[in-house]
Amino acid sequence: MRVAELPLRVLMGPGPSPVDPRVLEALAQPTLGHLDPAFLTLLDQLRSELRSVYGTRNTVTLPMSGTGSLGMETCLVNLLEPGDRILVGVNGVFGTRMCEVARRLGAEVSRVDAPWGRALDPDDLRRGLRDGPFKLLALVHAETSTGVLQDLAPLRALADEAGALLLVDTVTSLGGVAVDLDAHGVDASYSGTQKCLSCPPGLAPISLSERALNVVRARRTPIASWYMDLTLIGQYWGAERVYHHTAPINMLFALERALSLVLEETLPVRFERHRRHAAALAAGLEALGLVLPVPEASRLPPLTLVSVPAGVDEGAVRQTLLSRYNLELGAGLGQFAGKAWRIGLMGAGATRENVTLCLTALSEALREQGFATNPDAVARAHAVLDGEQVSRA
Amino acid sequence: MRVAELPLRVLMGPGPSPVDPRVLEALAQPTLGHLDPAFLTLLDQLRSELRSVYGTRNTVTLPMSGTGSLGMETCLVNLLEPGDRILVGVNGVFGTRMCEVARRLGAEVSRVDAPWGRALDPDDLRRGLRDGPFKLLALVHAETSTGVLQDLAPLRALADEAGALLLVDTVTSLGGVAVDLDAHGVDASYSGTQKCLSCPPGLAPISLSERALNVVRARRTPIASWYMDLTLIGQYWGAERVYHHTAPINMLFALERALSLVLEETLPVRFERHRRHAAALAAGLEALGLVLPVPEASRLPPLTLVSVPAGVDEGAVRQTLLSRYNLELGAGLGQFAGKAWRIGLMGAGATRENVTLCLTALSEALREQGFATNPDAVARAHAVLDGEQVSRA
Repeated sequence: MRVAELPLRVLMGPGPSPVDPRVLEALAQPTLGHLDPAFLTLLDQLRSELRSVYGTRNTVTLPMSGTGSLGMETCLVNLLEPGDRILVGVNGVFGTRMCEVARRLGAEVSRVDAPWGRALDPDDLRRGLRDGPFKLLALVHAETSTGVLQDLAPLRALADEAGALLLVDTVTSLGGVAVDLDAHGVDASYSGTQKCLSCPPGLAPISLSERALNVVRARRTPIASWYMDLTLIGQYWGAERVYHHTAPINMLFALERALSLVLEETLPVRFERHRRHAAALAAGLEALGLVLPVPEASRLPPLTLVSVPAGVDEGAVRQTLLSRYNLELGAGLGQFAGKAWRIGLMGAGATRENVTLCLTALSEALREQGFATNPDAVARAHAVLDGEQVSRA
Repeated sequence: MRVAELPLRVLMGPGPSPVDPRVLEALAQPTLGHLDPAFLTLLDQLRSELRSVYGTRNTVTLPMSGTGSLGMETCLVNLLEPGDRILVGVNGVFGTRMCEVARRLGAEVSRVDAPWGRALDPDDLRRGLRDGPFKLLALVHAETSTGVLQDLAPLRALADEAGALLLVDTVTSLGGVAVDLDAHGVDASYSGTQKCLSCPPGLAPISLSERALNVVRARRTPIASWYMDLTLIGQYWGAERVYHHTAPINMLFALERALSLVLEETLPVRFERHRRHAAALAAGLEALGLVLPVPEASRLPPLTLVSVPAGVDEGAVRQTLLSRYNLELGAGLGQFAGKAWRIGLMGAGATRENVTLCLTALSEALREQGFATNPDAVARAHAVLDGEQVSRA
């Protein structure tokens, strides 16, 4: 098979999301050297744009040369030393993963759990922090495994009570939901490029506060990973321009273009677009007769969890959508494996076209499996889109 | 600055190397999901091609989701446990880096040194191994900091005498010089995409033998890095297709295309092309009156080290070539910083055009700094190219 023979898909899973052709064009720009003055100028611009999207003035705001999970590990390997204590809020796969990564680094891991599909209760976190001291309080802002959005507002005060740094996973929120690191007092965050930034996967934007960097500088033990050592990587991104590793040049071209498109749209307009299309999709799915397990107040606009009805073969439905419409939905993950689909409306994919196609195709595939759906679902979704557009005019 | 406004460079540094337009086209193919059946078919094909280029049947032969240095760390973090002993052959920056990475992982590091610009002496390695036992003998096949090629032939026997696994850095050899992992009994190797494979930077091909995997499986302690854990990553690349992290889809499109181009050319033809153009460049540089510090028998065809003549401002020369010809040469690194240039003829860059441009431009810039050059240098290089072409016809 040639790459050029690969199918063209409508990506409505948990990421990667559809990539704007202008980003693909930037990706394919001829490669430059990682110390080329023109490339370094572009890096400065990228960093400035990334700070705007993150809502931070943090000096160390940069994309790590790997995927989102490398971003997670980068934050933990720089901040944690063997024996350090971390409290992780867990309500899905990615909170669970943070525990695992921290444990491998020799940290002592405590966790506060919420049921999958629910946000963590700040009071539960407060109780968990009473067993402190903890060096780090870590949570997932946007749980990609469940489609739950965690409110960041109360977390800084909780971390302060415990004297802990605050680490937040923003993989599926950055660029699609307000993150505002500085306003929320977040000390460290990591994300991915292939969700609401609508860039291919391969980079992990991170940001660390001055307070977090001071903790890194005060370490008693070396950072276990050379590749992820932010004291070294910062010297390439800083004025020194010291070579550390060869930057993934073309992916950085693409990310710069993707960030500039986010800022051209403006963050408020982009967040509202994600919110509106998710609301329309939810209305349509419920009109089809489907159940959304996440309470409305905790729903993550870029990613909607929807239960597979009893008697329906979830894999067969996804297979039908893929082969008939080139439409990719996400399977359930972890506790939701086989029980739910995950439908992404991220970045360039949060469109009326995608909402319409998804509801139409899903309705058809469900009917073929004997599940009666309401033919008005698409109209209900459009009413949300149009009604709100009118009310905003 | 827009990405589209970036300059087009002739990349003749230590990598990234020039990327074939067909690889850039593959890179910009619309993104697919990391579990899309069509994408998984492409991954199988990529792995098969990578095995051919590496000269191995190793099951675990795959590109890690990061740059070459992540490949180094992946091999070490999987194979080494705290307290394990490793012997590293050091004759440049990348051997030094292996020591540093291994030390951070808690290994006990011994080293055998050779002067920078020289290959390691097998007898020195044998003496070093007498202080064993060592779990790992590690060397750099192609030292990117010095342009030295290490002969792999005697290493397996040395490692066997010591009962050690053999780890080899093939970052600047894979695709440009014969590597033949299985023939040389190499247990673990890592490389990068941005050298002789002529793909953008961002992936680190690795390969581990069954013997190396058995060592990983027999570990007493968990692998410190979750992101680099090959027992988990192998489940995504294997028949199970278990999600680990989101693969860098578009970079994998590009790598597959780059590998297919390598195999279309055939390895023997490609290696001979690298050898011939490097010989021509060396003849031309020496004709200019320049000194090549590496003895001819140890020279690495894809990367030539050339001394900066006394009285010449090395940075000013590189700046002139960049601004006047968009031609990038590499600066010296480590012990050679300020003392040498590194000239790459890698992959798509190993061409008559590049040899000619480099000699012409360098001659001009040197004359402007008062260094008298021989005007016949280009002709001498062409004689090597043409003479050998005739002799092969």
